[in-house]
Amino acid sequence: MSVNSFGRVLRFTTWGESHGPAIGAVVDGCPPGIALSEADIRPWLDKRRPGASRFTTQRRESDQVRILSGTFEGRTTGTPIGLLIENEDQRSKDYSDVAKAYRPGHADYTYDAKYGFRDWRGGGRSSARETAMRVAAGAVARLIIPEVRILAYLVELGGDSIDRDNFDAAAIGQNALNCPEAAAAQRWEQKVDEARKAGSSLGAVVECVAEGVPAGWGAPVYAKLDAELASAMMSINAAKGVEIGDGFAAARLRGEDNADAMRAGPTFLSNHAGGILGGISSGQPVVVRTAFKPTSSILTPMPTIDREGNETEISTKGRHDPCVGIRAVPVVEAMMALVLADQKLLHRAQCG
Amino acid sequence: MSVNSFGRVLRFTTWGESHGPAIGAVVDGCPPGIALSEADIRPWLDKRRPGASRFTTQRRESDQVRILSGTFEGRTTGTPIGLLIENEDQRSKDYSDVAKAYRPGHADYTYDAKYGFRDWRGGGRSSARETAMRVAAGAVARLIIPEVRILAYLVELGGDSIDRDNFDAAAIGQNALNCPEAAAAQRWEQKVDEARKAGSSLGAVVECVAEGVPAGWGAPVYAKLDAELASAMMSINAAKGVEIGDGFAAARLRGEDNADAMRAGPTFLSNHAGGILGGISSGQPVVVRTAFKPTSSILTPMPTIDREGNETEISTKGRHDPCVGIRAVPVVEAMMALVLADQKLLHRAQCG
Amino acid sequence: MSVNSFGRVLRFTTWGESHGPAIGAVVDGCPPGIALSEADIRPWLDKRRPGASRFTTQRRESDQVRILSGTFEGRTTGTPIGLLIENEDQRSKDYSDVAKAYRPGHADYTYDAKYGFRDWRGGGRSSARETAMRVAAGAVARLIIPEVRILAYLVELGGDSIDRDNFDAAAIGQNALNCPEAAAAQRWEQKVDEARKAGSSLGAVVECVAEGVPAGWGAPVYAKLDAELASAMMSINAAKGVEIGDGFAAARLRGEDNADAMRAGPTFLSNHAGGILGGISSGQPVVVRTAFKPTSSILTPMPTIDREGNETEISTKGRHDPCVGIRAVPVVEAMMALVLADQKLLHRAQCG
Amino acid sequence: MSVNSFGRVLRFTTWGESHGPAIGAVVDGCPPGIALSEADIRPWLDKRRPGASRFTTQRRESDQVRILSGTFEGRTTGTPIGLLIENEDQRSKDYSDVAKAYRPGHADYTYDAKYGFRDWRGGGRSSARETAMRVAAGAVARLIIPEVRILAYLVELGGDSIDRDNFDAAAIGQNALNCPEAAAAQRWEQKVDEARKAGSSLGAVVECVAEGVPAGWGAPVYAKLDAELASAMMSINAAKGVEIGDGFAAARLRGEDNADAMRAGPTFLSNHAGGILGGISSGQPVVVRTAFKPTSSILTPMPTIDREGNETEISTKGRHDPCVGIRAVPVVEAMMALVLADQKLLHRAQCG
Repeated sequence: MSVNSFGRVLRFTTWGESHGPAIGAVVDGCPPGIALSEADIRPWLDKRRPGASRFTTQRRESDQVRILSGTFEGRTTGTPIGLLIENEDQRSKDYSDVAKAYRPGHADYTYDAKYGFRDWRGGGRSSARETAMRVAAGAVARLIIPEVRILAYLVELGGDSIDRDNFDAAAIGQNALNCPEAAAAQRWEQKVDEARKAGSSLGAVVECVAEGVPAGWGAPVYAKLDAELASAMMSINAAKGVEIGDGFAAARLRGEDNADAMRAGPTFLSNHAGGILGGISSGQPVVVRTAFKPTSSILTPMPTIDREGNETEISTKGRHDPCVGIRAVPVVEAMMALVLADQKLLHRAQCG
Repeated sequence: MSVNSFGRVLRFTTWGESHGPAIGAVVDGCPPGIALSEADIRPWLDKRRPGASRFTTQRRESDQVRILSGTFEGRTTGTPIGLLIENEDQRSKDYSDVAKAYRPGHADYTYDAKYGFRDWRGGGRSSARETAMRVAAGAVARLIIPEVRILAYLVELGGDSIDRDNFDAAAIGQNALNCPEAAAAQRWEQKVDEARKAGSSLGAVVECVAEGVPAGWGAPVYAKLDAELASAMMSINAAKGVEIGDGFAAARLRGEDNADAMRAGPTFLSNHAGGILGGISSGQPVVVRTAFKPTSSILTPMPTIDREGNETEISTKGRHDPCVGIRAVPVVEAMMALVLADQKLLHRAQCG
Repeated sequence: MSVNSFGRVLRFTTWGESHGPAIGAVVDGCPPGIALSEADIRPWLDKRRPGASRFTTQRRESDQVRILSGTFEGRTTGTPIGLLIENEDQRSKDYSDVAKAYRPGHADYTYDAKYGFRDWRGGGRSSARETAMRVAAGAVARLIIPEVRILAYLVELGGDSIDRDNFDAAAIGQNALNCPEAAAAQRWEQKVDEARKAGSSLGAVVECVAEGVPAGWGAPVYAKLDAELASAMMSINAAKGVEIGDGFAAARLRGEDNADAMRAGPTFLSNHAGGILGGISSGQPVVVRTAFKPTSSILTPMPTIDREGNETEISTKGRHDPCVGIRAVPVVEAMMALVLADQKLLHRAQCG
Repeated sequence: MSVNSFGRVLRFTTWGESHGPAIGAVVDGCPPGIALSEADIRPWLDKRRPGASRFTTQRRESDQVRILSGTFEGRTTGTPIGLLIENEDQRSKDYSDVAKAYRPGHADYTYDAKYGFRDWRGGGRSSARETAMRVAAGAVARLIIPEVRILAYLVELGGDSIDRDNFDAAAIGQNALNCPEAAAAQRWEQKVDEARKAGSSLGAVVECVAEGVPAGWGAPVYAKLDAELASAMMSINAAKGVEIGDGFAAARLRGEDNADAMRAGPTFLSNHAGGILGGISSGQPVVVRTAFKPTSSILTPMPTIDREGNETEISTKGRHDPCVGIRAVPVVEAMMALVLADQKLLHRAQCG
């Protein structure tokens, strides 16, 4: 029942704080015989790595992951895969103010309320640094589901949505914002620059699509594929909403417009359901969108209190992402991979 | 790892099909010494019961729950609480068409794809009938968290939202739609009547607020309170989206507008976060909204295929809710209660 | 994390007290498409049923199990299987003395210490009546592992062991004591009669052998097949010891005498290991022995205390087994089946 | 459901192979605010460390554990505690023979049968090296249960038992065999020397006593304290039997001799039950004995087969313990601490 673990058959556990000596993960349940080396993980970590552009935090981490167990002669053995990344650029001094007062929008106050205690260096365990290990674990998960192609990107930034008619998957890698539309990317760059200079921050919505998922993954009733995805995405830092397929818009459709009609194949005439019916995959693309709030760490001073309850102000001076949604993209992909790989193995257990 | 169980310390398991002889639940982990009888459960089941108005399915179930274990002389003993409701009004014959073809928007196709097999009577395990047991289990959970007040209601039906300025909690019980605004309730009644007569259906958004939750419930990283709530709500039939606090709207705010400033008390100047920071409750009201798609069972004929893959049409003639969101209200409340009670006990385990 | 559940992929949950209205179980994770009816469960319950001979409790229960969910048209659907047995012969009045004082050797004192509360009617949840549901669940598990043959029997009763040279599987069903040696059965009948008349009770050792288990079931490190079996057997009422293969005797062998040499086949020249190496099955018969203490409910008066801590004496007058080990035989078999079926599915999940 | 994790509320996960770069553990659920540093763990690892005397393997490992997360300013924070030990003395070349053929009594064959694959260097994941992490995790668990005193020692070696009348706890640390009787220790030293020189090995029985456990820890039915202990002990390498209190000997007692009578206090007149009744602690000392088979790695050549199924012989030349039971003592203690700490927190969750 580890609260720092996720998954049922493929189960991973993460540990580590933002400014501790290292962070790590254990991936248990990976099938044996899969070719795996650090080179399979590195590209995904690079995609998430801080300091890559002016739109993300300037913290510098090389994020060199080491596989410490679970492989032999380049292949998985079926035993737990231990992953570790040393923390390098730990400027705890940036956090002296944080030690004194609670940052609004942050976990500072709630961790203290829960544990009577907190590691204030960079948010400690509540820092998005933890997501590096999700990305590493997700890279392993991807190898378990080679039949699936996963792609995530921003569809909205600071309230500005992409034009779906101009969707261009190729564009995603061509801008620093994971935006699938060249024109929107240009607008967004200006928006982010402006927010950063103003000491403010912006929110975003990340869409993730998984193609190639066969019909039959997922499990009633409390391990529904959509329930698992909702939990997975909502567990990412700054996530405030999750929707599947048409999501909240589906609540505005009529029954005959929302239900996806079927034709021989089997095939579907639409995908309002986002590839999931009754909690089980339908063979259509699985579509999930996650809303990320604007970064809570901002230069703009905010009213707050200190540990003794005295009123004060705080302005967060550390190196922070002006829009956490941008760097959430590879994390969302990783969680999608982890959920799908888990459900694949779970399905195999019960249904052979 | 039962996929039909939910919760960590307070863990409940449900079983049963829509048209089997009975449905049931086992609630494990309930503290001992709590006064509990069927009378504590009945009101919540009544709230959910079908056939109560013309806006819900005309299936008639008295939903008499029996407590078969876990209590002695009117109090819980700490051992598992076995709950059972006999199914009464099982008109399986309504489902003869369903046996032949897959209903669009339903779990018919995906259950068959997964199991190579399905109980087609009323959706079997995928039926919303299962949620009666969640409501029963939720009634037990409420007794574990007497400090918390939970209230759910519709904030949107068929795309028509309430006017927040006219919010009136007292109105909720005064209409058959769980609507907190008298004027909206009137408009919605017409909408639902129209949809029902047209053989169509409507979607809805349910908001649930829990007041009295102390700061400190929830757990990083994969048992975050919001992640648990997302999983809980998304596991309800027809749910397609979940958001906490401002949710998707938070993604359109700037950092300084979204972060809830703190003052001595401790108190907060706003509640954009919906009472959860870093996955842990802040002491503010916990706010969750869930989007429900329009009922997939409609009279309007829809293109589909049969088990052999031949193209055909289907029109669902059974007794169905024109808007499942209406009856989802007590289910949403029950899941809120179950998640909070579980997190209360989990918090007590680690933090004393 | 339900403490009343067992298993990882095939997970069952039991509920119910000795003298409540009913007892039940939920079996989750059973593969779909398996033929299952009450007739598949009844023979195993009959084997365990009380009142069958003078060597067991005279409580009369017909133990008619009902399958309330999880099957359709005679086959499993992949959804949870709800099982229920109504309690019939509940003479709670036998327990008026028990309500007042703690029976030595019983859970009376510890349940009270834990919960501040107990259901004193027949031991409540701590009664061996719960094992009826294990036998029912075990009957389902057997259908998942048709390749395995399970046989349990007594090898020792009241300190008197069978002569291994005269082992006769056919004899087991020919006496009321589950004894695999005709001569020992005769001696044991006298022993049990004598103990019963003296108001005393006897212990026993049950051996269980599973043949046909392929090499490869089990999982390092904390789900080792032997660790799972140890937990399963020790969870049975009155169990005080568990050993695998040579068990405690292995501790007296030298390395070269204990290690089972291998020859082509692959085959083994001996089976000191009891079919398990490194927590994983070797393809040899899996052998487990479980020690059961003498029944604690005896007519002989014993010094004890009441709830207020006053010293008193108690003599248990209810209808009790003079040797619980006898009726433990089908329970041991059921737990073996449940562990093996679970590990089969778990193996399939990871290793395909 | 990680198979490499143990515990319910206090849950730890281990990873790592005998000859990989490192081994590690993650301890999740530890209460916050407990003083913890490497110095709290080191003494227990020293007790287990190889190379300490001629009676244990000559592998040299300094076993320097590092705490990589979960503490801040010397206290636990409530977040997962990451522990790591680098492997230093990895003479994989010793294992060239092992790569070719299966060692009788070892997990070589079964791992290969399960995974189609194995890390043959020193047994990989099946090596007792994994138990170093249990000892480290156990050191953390001890801090959660300061009210409990745990002591383990050998009561039998190579079939030679101690004389209970001469039991002397002080003697345990005065010999290299963890023997609580000076005279027996002398006899055993000769036995072990003789076995080692003969290229053979010996078994042993370890007894572990926990004093100070209050009444009320443990949970019916499948999380019984004895069932958890049985699983915990049987998961240790080379364990073949577990018994609680009188264990197998209880099966030879009569009811009135086995049931522990109670007197005011409350107190008990004996402890045949080993401190556990109905799966829940009684307040008496918890007593567990575990049987360890003789080390399977011996110099004496044994008939076996290679991966291709050809018959051959193998003699294990690596550095091995002539009696694994000796070094199992601190591991048994660690598992006792981990089970008790887990049950303490679990009890607190349900019963406040």
